[in-house]
Amino acid sequence: MNQKPFVLLTNDDGIFAEGLYQLYLAIREVAEVAVVAPDSEKSAVGHAITIADPLRVSRFHRDGVFFGYAVNGTPADCVKLAYYALLDRKPDAVISGINLGSNTGINVIYSGTVSAATEANILGMPSFAISLATFTDPIFKPAADFAAKLLPVILERPLPKRTFLNVNVPNVPQEQIRGVRITRQGMAMFDDDYEARRDPRNRVYYWLTGSKMELETDPDVDDVAVAQNYISITPLHYDLTNYQCLDDLRRWDIPM
Amino acid sequence: MNQKPFVLLTNDDGIFAEGLYQLYLAIREVAEVAVVAPDSEKSAVGHAITIADPLRVSRFHRDGVFFGYAVNGTPADCVKLAYYALLDRKPDAVISGINLGSNTGINVIYSGTVSAATEANILGMPSFAISLATFTDPIFKPAADFAAKLLPVILERPLPKRTFLNVNVPNVPQEQIRGVRITRQGMAMFDDDYEARRDPRNRVYYWLTGSKMELETDPDVDDVAVAQNYISITPLHYDLTNYQCLDDLRRWDIPM
Repeated sequence: MNQKPFVLLTNDDGIFAEGLYQLYLAIREVAEVAVVAPDSEKSAVGHAITIADPLRVSRFHRDGVFFGYAVNGTPADCVKLAYYALLDRKPDAVISGINLGSNTGINVIYSGTVSAATEANILGMPSFAISLATFTDPIFKPAADFAAKLLPVILERPLPKRTFLNVNVPNVPQEQIRGVRITRQGMAMFDDDYEARRDPRNRVYYWLTGSKMELETDPDVDDVAVAQNYISITPLHYDLTNYQCLDDLRRWDIPM
Repeated sequence: MNQKPFVLLTNDDGIFAEGLYQLYLAIREVAEVAVVAPDSEKSAVGHAITIADPLRVSRFHRDGVFFGYAVNGTPADCVKLAYYALLDRKPDAVISGINLGSNTGINVIYSGTVSAATEANILGMPSFAISLATFTDPIFKPAADFAAKLLPVILERPLPKRTFLNVNVPNVPQEQIRGVRITRQGMAMFDDDYEARRDPRNRVYYWLTGSKMELETDPDVDDVAVAQNYISITPLHYDLTNYQCLDDLRRWDIPM
């Protein structure tokens, strides 16, 4: 009989988050699990790593039993520290989530959830990020169950080098999910603004506000698939080169 | 006669940094300049934005005259806040740098310098990031002069949509620079580790350590070009989709 795989779980909502716990409950049925996650919410941290400050680790208990390690760092820090210092062996895979809120379109580049999956991949571990497309009344079970089904797939069928998966799940009951769609990262943006306020000492401060702009319509776009109640899976990599314009640029006359 | 372009400068080393000042001195010769930069060092922040905290802005003076706005946020915050709240008109271009230390290979995804150029591009402004390949004894002048020469090029010859430039300059005198090379993002990584130490109260903390692993050898790789004393220019975008494996993935049998 095969041994169970060893899987590291992390997130960016923090080790307290219900989405991480629901993921844990589903994955521990099919794998040996370690949890290393931020000790507080780290949304929109992008692919930050902590280099100028020391990292602290504490043992986090849930319902009276040890649940995992809480780190005063970012999701990418958690994966790095787990790999190099906290775990006694290399995980077979890393899953980041379940994030409260989708990580689609332009949001992918701000996402701490995705950054943890990126970091895992950089370190040579298969990985995926999984997010639930809601901020309120989350239905985590279908996403958690899907994570448990996707895990053996990525363990058995390796993706190309430096590639991992970004999974987004619609927030509907299992029976309303219409299937899985392989998608590309859309370019749905936020229409941001800043609200200027004055503090009690009459000094100005700014809060970021913003609403998502209209969706794209192409069915193979991540956001569109989720809006149509499909589970969206986008293969991501971290080679940011725009290869299509390399040759053009080489014809430019750039003065020196 | 044409009006001078209006250019926003930012960085991730902080508004105090000499690299930003040298960039400012060069660019103000060819453009009207605004500076909005972090009020402290924000290296390796990736594409972080501040959503859970208010942003504060202060006026920063240099040599007794107003130099720019200092923000208690990340480089991406600086660009967003400049665009939406601080400047009275949209910049014609954004330059981020001059960073102390190269932003090549895998480092690109951790880079606050690059993230500022990314954010500018998202907001519809031509942009580039510029970094100097050294941490000690920087020779900023050739990089600053090159930025001033590259600015009119990106204003006159628009890049494809959602594409901007990542420039890395070798730390040598002007006469030793061999030219400009258009490159792709290499995959040079850090061989990281964490050093566990104990604080005066005998609690463990961890510092990230690491040294860059051996360079790649292909001359069109960013790191290699810089090591050969070329100015490296890589066209970057922020669509992370690995298009090459979309079709493969669609043939996978993913259970639901």
